[in-house]
Amino acid sequence: MHHQENRAILLVTCQDKPGIVSAISTSLFHHHANIVQSDQYSTDPEHGRFFMRVEFEWEESKANYQSIQEALKQIAQEYAFTYKVEKASRKKQMAIFVSKENHCLSEILWKWKAGELYANIPLVISNHKDAQEEVESYGIPFYHIPATKENRKEAEEQAIQLLKDHQVELVVLARYMQILTSTFVSQFPEKIINIHHSFLPAFIGANPYAKAFERGVKLIGATAHYVTDDLDEGPIIEQDVMRVDHRHSAKDLKIVGRNIERIALARAVQWHLDDRCIVHQNKTIVF
Amino acid sequence: MHHQENRAILLVTCQDKPGIVSAISTSLFHHHANIVQSDQYSTDPEHGRFFMRVEFEWEESKANYQSIQEALKQIAQEYAFTYKVEKASRKKQMAIFVSKENHCLSEILWKWKAGELYANIPLVISNHKDAQEEVESYGIPFYHIPATKENRKEAEEQAIQLLKDHQVELVVLARYMQILTSTFVSQFPEKIINIHHSFLPAFIGANPYAKAFERGVKLIGATAHYVTDDLDEGPIIEQDVMRVDHRHSAKDLKIVGRNIERIALARAVQWHLDDRCIVHQNKTIVF
Amino acid sequence: MHHQENRAILLVTCQDKPGIVSAISTSLFHHHANIVQSDQYSTDPEHGRFFMRVEFEWEESKANYQSIQEALKQIAQEYAFTYKVEKASRKKQMAIFVSKENHCLSEILWKWKAGELYANIPLVISNHKDAQEEVESYGIPFYHIPATKENRKEAEEQAIQLLKDHQVELVVLARYMQILTSTFVSQFPEKIINIHHSFLPAFIGANPYAKAFERGVKLIGATAHYVTDDLDEGPIIEQDVMRVDHRHSAKDLKIVGRNIERIALARAVQWHLDDRCIVHQNKTIVF
Amino acid sequence: MHHQENRAILLVTCQDKPGIVSAISTSLFHHHANIVQSDQYSTDPEHGRFFMRVEFEWEESKANYQSIQEALKQIAQEYAFTYKVEKASRKKQMAIFVSKENHCLSEILWKWKAGELYANIPLVISNHKDAQEEVESYGIPFYHIPATKENRKEAEEQAIQLLKDHQVELVVLARYMQILTSTFVSQFPEKIINIHHSFLPAFIGANPYAKAFERGVKLIGATAHYVTDDLDEGPIIEQDVMRVDHRHSAKDLKIVGRNIERIALARAVQWHLDDRCIVHQNKTIVF
Repeated sequence: MHHQENRAILLVTCQDKPGIVSAISTSLFHHHANIVQSDQYSTDPEHGRFFMRVEFEWEESKANYQSIQEALKQIAQEYAFTYKVEKASRKKQMAIFVSKENHCLSEILWKWKAGELYANIPLVISNHKDAQEEVESYGIPFYHIPATKENRKEAEEQAIQLLKDHQVELVVLARYMQILTSTFVSQFPEKIINIHHSFLPAFIGANPYAKAFERGVKLIGATAHYVTDDLDEGPIIEQDVMRVDHRHSAKDLKIVGRNIERIALARAVQWHLDDRCIVHQNKTIVF
Repeated sequence: MHHQENRAILLVTCQDKPGIVSAISTSLFHHHANIVQSDQYSTDPEHGRFFMRVEFEWEESKANYQSIQEALKQIAQEYAFTYKVEKASRKKQMAIFVSKENHCLSEILWKWKAGELYANIPLVISNHKDAQEEVESYGIPFYHIPATKENRKEAEEQAIQLLKDHQVELVVLARYMQILTSTFVSQFPEKIINIHHSFLPAFIGANPYAKAFERGVKLIGATAHYVTDDLDEGPIIEQDVMRVDHRHSAKDLKIVGRNIERIALARAVQWHLDDRCIVHQNKTIVF
Repeated sequence: MHHQENRAILLVTCQDKPGIVSAISTSLFHHHANIVQSDQYSTDPEHGRFFMRVEFEWEESKANYQSIQEALKQIAQEYAFTYKVEKASRKKQMAIFVSKENHCLSEILWKWKAGELYANIPLVISNHKDAQEEVESYGIPFYHIPATKENRKEAEEQAIQLLKDHQVELVVLARYMQILTSTFVSQFPEKIINIHHSFLPAFIGANPYAKAFERGVKLIGATAHYVTDDLDEGPIIEQDVMRVDHRHSAKDLKIVGRNIERIALARAVQWHLDDRCIVHQNKTIVF
Repeated sequence: MHHQENRAILLVTCQDKPGIVSAISTSLFHHHANIVQSDQYSTDPEHGRFFMRVEFEWEESKANYQSIQEALKQIAQEYAFTYKVEKASRKKQMAIFVSKENHCLSEILWKWKAGELYANIPLVISNHKDAQEEVESYGIPFYHIPATKENRKEAEEQAIQLLKDHQVELVVLARYMQILTSTFVSQFPEKIINIHHSFLPAFIGANPYAKAFERGVKLIGATAHYVTDDLDEGPIIEQDVMRVDHRHSAKDLKIVGRNIERIALARAVQWHLDDRCIVHQNKTIVF
């Protein structure tokens, strides 16, 4: 995605209704904004759900971004749609939560530094100190908030306060091994991305890699999803798999698992940062 | 894709210009047509190329398809765009050319009968008789047109005549081992799809599978593309690969090759039939 | 795999014990048999499980296949191993069971005719008549055995009798929508291969494709496995996935599902026919 | 792979000859060494090439690794085979060469630190200083050897001396943008691994990503290979691809390219470190 000063992304979702695309595109045209890329999808043209992503650029000499925003606000009221419009040049505030394992953290940090993830990272929060040195080597503040049964409430409150202080818009759970309460989750709806391993078939309970080994699975997968109250069951953003065979020990399967987790999580984060995701019920539309 | 009576697909390409999306979507709205799905992409918003695919449905009680067509024609003139509008319910006339190997033919025929490929197949043409029984078992007329050095011109003329008689809109070269002349190709621009094997690296000359074996390649690929005068170099529609290892003999690599050819060709044919492809210069935009 | 007259495949499994490889390879050497390819794997060298596949060729002027067989029998007794030795040139007797949907059947039949599956197919059994014409066009006898709640026992007995009459060694359930009783399964241990769809996460209950659509999954998979009494839970032979997105309707997901089922089942059948699979507990070693 | 003290890996290649497997396995057995995993492959049993990899463990109370080594040496003479035997616990000396782009370097370093690559890294050499801080943060010495047209000979001599001083056994070219002379290459036969992008079709000359964009390729690949005098044409170890579409700009394709380079190179390096590769002519057997 390009991040020019004069480019913005509009995400729209609503009950489908005739004339929405016409209203939006005509308004953009009148405000000297040109559609560079757009994707639109309706579940059902009659009574279905409407989803749209529009990337547009305005002519800087003629257009005024504020006027465009106001025009979109008015159309949104008229058509009763939910929307978000964002300058492509604005970097989102992204926080990362990590525990001991750093594979997802390292991937995100590396891609961020390489310019593949367009965001600011004002802080990393961990319930352990293992990642501190790595995080600080990137010049990113690291907060150690130990999590115990006793202090869960206080620890979460501290974390929420830090996220608010930094106006965080995306929380990436990069193998954060603590369950977030619904108090926490409800403050960041559709703004927390988690990664977890995925198996065919699903292996319930402890030590799924040992079970996958015993069962002789041929694929190891990972699923990146938005976090809702229903643990590991939120709207899926991305999934991927890698092949394995009988020569992979349970430990080897775990290593494969973390490598596919790195890939799936990084893609999901990138798509969110590029405003390509719209959540509807328990599903993510990725444009 | 759905193929209801009241659904159509519009494909547009032109020099990018402000207002095109607005003009099209507003016109559809005024004609009681609702956009079900749309994809739009511009290479460069200033002086670039504009591509769009719109799937729309009209309210049968209020709308008139002919009026919609006329309205689009007028907008096309105004904005100087090239377009195509097609009823989703209309089946395209598709011919298949085959030689001796039937792997791609069988795949296309099977998917066609299974309802995965939305087309009529008025005829299959071959320079051999090997496929006759299989083709006729599907109730499809089979034409044997032998191709020799001496009769190439007459053979092509006969084939062109047959294709015209059946108003063929898509010619699938399902491992047809004859080179088509530019006379033939020029009569069916962007309407002939071919499949050929692809290697990393490319192996020039005869017997590429033997060379791939000697080189120990780890992937065998296939490329489906539109046919232009430049042999095997037309706009790419789809590519895919399969993994191989040292235990695959040259003969085994060939078998892998034909299996990946089946998959890549069938996908390209489906995307063409669903009007998802727009060719620009030597490139295919697949929406 | 090559199927010369003077080639055989040996599969061995047992408790690991020092000297097994030495005993087998030395015996083959003394009998003028040369190892062409071999794979061996132990779960744990101390008290683990030993698995081996050996492909060997004998010098026809000097060697005697019967002597080789007798020598292997003797070593097997000495080392208490379970084994199977098969001439590569011998085609296995393979039966196919199918119901109404023919996608897996067609794939197996096509690959069989193309020489990709090395087997005889003495019969196809179905509880419906839909596949009769297709099966008979290959010159394969088709048996229609209707299955109702009332006649299940008789129907299975009839099927078992047919399989025994044709000395069937592999039963491929190519979307056979009847549950086999443990009486049936116990007669063909590790000789029945089934295919079923696989989702990440698993969707329990009726209509998994509708649920996968609602959940917005990004991958659709299939698992080919040996059939045991535990429905859909036998040792996995092969798994594969295909990517999907929000534009795939529940019906489209089903089509993707059947295409990945074709691929996964055909691979599993080929590996079984090439004697590449060894089952241990609930796991398949695929060499 | 396990790296116990009492485990070793044997790699063998030679003209095929009866009795080799028997001789090796019997000798190991007599020396109280148990075969844990073995793979063997012959191109042709009559006059072909024989390749074998054996992973074995000895009983520490009874066996003597030196005696095993001597026994293997003797068999090697008898059967005229080329071999290498290595303790699994011994870490190889691995050097990394890098220029400005750090994507491959970072991947290797991260996997190394995570314990996925079993090696020592005594030094990293670069013709630029960009990677210095990253390399040193891992506690690895960094050598800056500028490479100009004038000093190529001296620069290479300096590098060779450093590699010899550290007894380097594997040189990883992690996007090192200098051509190595045959003097250099000849000192490290089958011990230099390079990564380069791979396209279908191949795009010759400068700026292949721009050409791939213009051609609308659907896959971007990477090939990891041993370096020979024939630039980018040495024996292939691993290849992989990622999907792309028209929305990827030339710059995006480059980003995809570097992500698939990371994956393919890391796998090749791991397989080399685990002694899974045997080179024969211009081909790599990967067991």
